[in-house]
Amino acid sequence: MKSLKEQILEGAAPDLAAVEKALSENLNPHLDLVRTVAEHLLFAGGKRMRPLLTILSARMCGREGVEVTRLSTVFEYLHAATLLHDDVVDDSAVRRGKPAAHTVHGAAVTVLVGDFLLARTCSIATETGMLPVIQTITDVTGVMSEGEILQLMGKSNVDLSEDQYIDTIERKTAVLLAASCKVGGLFAGASPERAQALWDFGRALGIAFQMADDLLDYTGDPAATGKAVGTDLREGKLTLPLIIALKNAATGERAFMERVIRAQGFTNDEFSRIVSIISRSGGISHTMSEARGHVDRALAILDTFPPSPPRDLLAKLAEYALARKS
Amino acid sequence: MKSLKEQILEGAAPDLAAVEKALSENLNPHLDLVRTVAEHLLFAGGKRMRPLLTILSARMCGREGVEVTRLSTVFEYLHAATLLHDDVVDDSAVRRGKPAAHTVHGAAVTVLVGDFLLARTCSIATETGMLPVIQTITDVTGVMSEGEILQLMGKSNVDLSEDQYIDTIERKTAVLLAASCKVGGLFAGASPERAQALWDFGRALGIAFQMADDLLDYTGDPAATGKAVGTDLREGKLTLPLIIALKNAATGERAFMERVIRAQGFTNDEFSRIVSIISRSGGISHTMSEARGHVDRALAILDTFPPSPPRDLLAKLAEYALARKS
Repeated sequence: MKSLKEQILEGAAPDLAAVEKALSENLNPHLDLVRTVAEHLLFAGGKRMRPLLTILSARMCGREGVEVTRLSTVFEYLHAATLLHDDVVDDSAVRRGKPAAHTVHGAAVTVLVGDFLLARTCSIATETGMLPVIQTITDVTGVMSEGEILQLMGKSNVDLSEDQYIDTIERKTAVLLAASCKVGGLFAGASPERAQALWDFGRALGIAFQMADDLLDYTGDPAATGKAVGTDLREGKLTLPLIIALKNAATGERAFMERVIRAQGFTNDEFSRIVSIISRSGGISHTMSEARGHVDRALAILDTFPPSPPRDLLAKLAEYALARKS
Repeated sequence: MKSLKEQILEGAAPDLAAVEKALSENLNPHLDLVRTVAEHLLFAGGKRMRPLLTILSARMCGREGVEVTRLSTVFEYLHAATLLHDDVVDDSAVRRGKPAAHTVHGAAVTVLVGDFLLARTCSIATETGMLPVIQTITDVTGVMSEGEILQLMGKSNVDLSEDQYIDTIERKTAVLLAASCKVGGLFAGASPERAQALWDFGRALGIAFQMADDLLDYTGDPAATGKAVGTDLREGKLTLPLIIALKNAATGERAFMERVIRAQGFTNDEFSRIVSIISRSGGISHTMSEARGHVDRALAILDTFPPSPPRDLLAKLAEYALARKS
């Protein structure tokens, strides 16, 4: 029996190939530097989950074709722009298993290419001439930007609550997936109710994905994820597993964790001890069960749409949020 | 007799006060960090030339009021976002006579607040629900972003031509002023021909302004401009005065200038010698006469509009491009 990942990749293969082509075509060929920097990131083996969500949502609502594919690239560009600026902001060394763009090209170029991708996003969105599409994309750009700032302000805050965490990942990840789905529906002429359902589906999927991602930062296999474990902790970013551990741990263990969070650096032994505290305090199981709840919600929303091949693939993507190892 | 600057400030006083209020109101009050960083730049005494162009253009075409003022802030935010990212990109120490934002708040915050202002720009533009307005703002965002990248790629290129220079300042400055004027007209319901005339007026004004700015970098009084002289040269940015000097200077002088450009640093004596070469080779007079030509073109375009107080003020702004000392 094929794995979930294999089933998704097989079902989405023609769409993914079309997305790759459109991603490349939409970059201005006269700007070699943009191509070099953007390709470093854009063509470094991302999952193209966001464009795929747009294409599948549009198809589920009755529209497909090159215009949909072109529009879908907006969400990969917006995502890539965020990653580029994030790398500068976090001063990360590695992204998608490769050296981060700013370590290769310098912060200046990385900032400017991020800006260029943001501008492409607005420009492709405007081309549609559809105000609700433009509005949706504009809104999430604003919400994401505020989220980045909130996250920076919340760094190393050991009293970050679960609600604040949800707000952060909603802005950081979930609204972009929500918009990817909603815009696909809007572009296909879906009713406002259907468009809202697609937004809710993408939002739930996004929260589940980010929770799984945050778990992998403690429990993942660097060979599979292409990321070192402990990156969030090292950057002082509090995610749900650690928030739960801080809440439930004994006084001495909490003091130890707070020290490591503030130091933004740790030995292998210290990291192992933190993973062990997180596990014992229910940080891992709670995060898993929360993520499962969001996937179930996403699946329930999908059930309000008539059965179709794109609906089946969207359901597999939702399941994959939890099953993935990278 | 009042100076040109005094006449402009007097004529524009009510509009400028309304712009200040709108600039402050449009920033999300919940994000203290944005306010702090943005205010550092936004409320550090900029000229508000861009919002003023929008307001005067709209009034010349028959519309004024709070919606116009709100929309006009888009161009100040876009300008401020560019300056914030520019400061990170150039690693400048000073902006508008104060320490640059990134030296106070760090590159991370500066990048993110620039992104936030870009997002506000898109959001306020989208609110109008007018596709030509959105399209104009989206287009210039893209052109400016490409321009930043081209400028970075052209750094320290001693063979930069006058045409390449014009292309750079068009993207860096002129299109934003052009859009500020055109959007004012579009929002007031101007015909496509009138909107195009406003674009052409703003473009000519912007080129003249940037040429005057580039001259001040060699001939300005730091006490008046709030900027050290020689900043462009230090950053390896070739502007028209230097391009003309490189073209016309004798072999030995050209070799000397090339050495300084590549070194991106110089003594006071070296800088004085370069200013002297620029002056003798016609770099200053040529730049002045080119700028004058663009102002005359701008004034000729204004003459195609019926006489009105906003038209008079726009004409004064055009003259001021050359008269200003800062």
